[in-house]
Amino acid sequence: MTDGQHIRAGRRSGVKEITSVANPIIKELRALTSKKDREASGAFLSEGLGFVEEALGRGWPVRTLVHAIALRGDGRVREAAARTLEAGGQVLEVSEAVLSAITRRDNPQPVLGVFEQRWRPLAAMKPGKNETLVALDRVRDPGNLGTIIRTADAAGAAGVILIGECTDPFALEAVRATMGSLLAMPLTKCSADEFLAWQKGSGAQVVATHLRGAVDYRNVDYARKPVVLLMGNEQSGLPDGLAHAADTRVRIPQQGSAESLNLAIATAVMLYEARRHLLML
Amino acid sequence: MTDGQHIRAGRRSGVKEITSVANPIIKELRALTSKKDREASGAFLSEGLGFVEEALGRGWPVRTLVHAIALRGDGRVREAAARTLEAGGQVLEVSEAVLSAITRRDNPQPVLGVFEQRWRPLAAMKPGKNETLVALDRVRDPGNLGTIIRTADAAGAAGVILIGECTDPFALEAVRATMGSLLAMPLTKCSADEFLAWQKGSGAQVVATHLRGAVDYRNVDYARKPVVLLMGNEQSGLPDGLAHAADTRVRIPQQGSAESLNLAIATAVMLYEARRHLLML
Repeated sequence: MTDGQHIRAGRRSGVKEITSVANPIIKELRALTSKKDREASGAFLSEGLGFVEEALGRGWPVRTLVHAIALRGDGRVREAAARTLEAGGQVLEVSEAVLSAITRRDNPQPVLGVFEQRWRPLAAMKPGKNETLVALDRVRDPGNLGTIIRTADAAGAAGVILIGECTDPFALEAVRATMGSLLAMPLTKCSADEFLAWQKGSGAQVVATHLRGAVDYRNVDYARKPVVLLMGNEQSGLPDGLAHAADTRVRIPQQGSAESLNLAIATAVMLYEARRHLLML
Repeated sequence: MTDGQHIRAGRRSGVKEITSVANPIIKELRALTSKKDREASGAFLSEGLGFVEEALGRGWPVRTLVHAIALRGDGRVREAAARTLEAGGQVLEVSEAVLSAITRRDNPQPVLGVFEQRWRPLAAMKPGKNETLVALDRVRDPGNLGTIIRTADAAGAAGVILIGECTDPFALEAVRATMGSLLAMPLTKCSADEFLAWQKGSGAQVVATHLRGAVDYRNVDYARKPVVLLMGNEQSGLPDGLAHAADTRVRIPQQGSAESLNLAIATAVMLYEARRHLLML
């Protein structure tokens, strides 16, 4: 790559150099920071080479690999670029200004990826023996959602169900908080009614965390059946319809002056309790 | 307050109306979003009426109460203002533009508070029977730190020790994440050497969470002695000096592809385990 500087757009199929933020391709990528545009295109944006490598390792196709021109000679970046092209993806070598423009950040990561979103149908979420699902009702904060996906992966959960109007797991802030676990964790979304209908035939016990839950979260037989941990919205908790339909309503004991736990924290405490008998060093 | 609009600065001692972002008092308040200026003034900024009310309830003096002019007639705001003035504090009635300028936010909270920072000396952190402290080594993310303070409060911990170059618990983003628990949780900061010296005479067992820890985090007798939960930096974990000096090095089991848990999540899982025998509904 010693003559890399002299090579321009089209030097090989699928590789382009872009230094103008007004380029229409860059405008398309920028649009991925808007939920509406993500829904229209079915795509999402990730930051960091690690995420791209993780995706390649999992056979999750990279639609577009974007990297700083300065990384043209970097071994890992070249490897990722070659694998992206091989699978029919596109590679963009861009300026710092373009990276900043896409991610709307002052110090952008030098590598970005564009991927297709993957959603499972709710019917495909059928927890088997020793499996745990997390169901989130109207989760609002993308950082919380990303952290929950990361924790669900670490605790060995089988998937995350998003009920009602949730924040988007494919938003840049959520993707960032998943630290790559977004690629591992099956995701589905549904309405509260769809969830209630699914719940009946799921063969699982639904354990709802509720501020007025009467049962200590540790006094549930989590080994008896597959488990769905149902968690409410950050501000208002679970609506009665969902809470009453659950098999058990539990509470995490709290001391001190805190009114409640952060949603991602409460979900983690529940996950590590529900899977306590399954998690070993 | 029907004639409130006609009343201007100085209508009663300690109350000022300010609509210019160039006002020197506003410049001083804006400076509280910078760590250097917070250290120089020993003050910090909070958002929301709830935080101010919680502080008043705890006898934590409000140096300055800032609220939107539009809230001049609000009963709770008037009550908070009266109590602030009574204790020698100042009340500022300001425009939306001034609120935005102070917090650097587009949709600012209509009530802000300015308080004095409180730090305990390390020597005052002496955990007694059934007490748990959290010690964080070089924690970087203000959201993580705030969430940890909130969780420590909820789990009934006795304080948080900040070791080495940590992010500032009095930064606006950290304060926000504590959801008021900042007012409840004793805080101290020290160097790694000071911590190691303190540890010897503390009478507590130090349980370090470590990616190479050989002990399952559930296989520790947390009831035997007061406990210090020692957690490492988000990127690099604990340095050897701190890890080796701990009484036990534990690990939280993980499945799935996730490389590690978020620091606030790992701290929560540890807190709920270390205080498992003490937390009851």
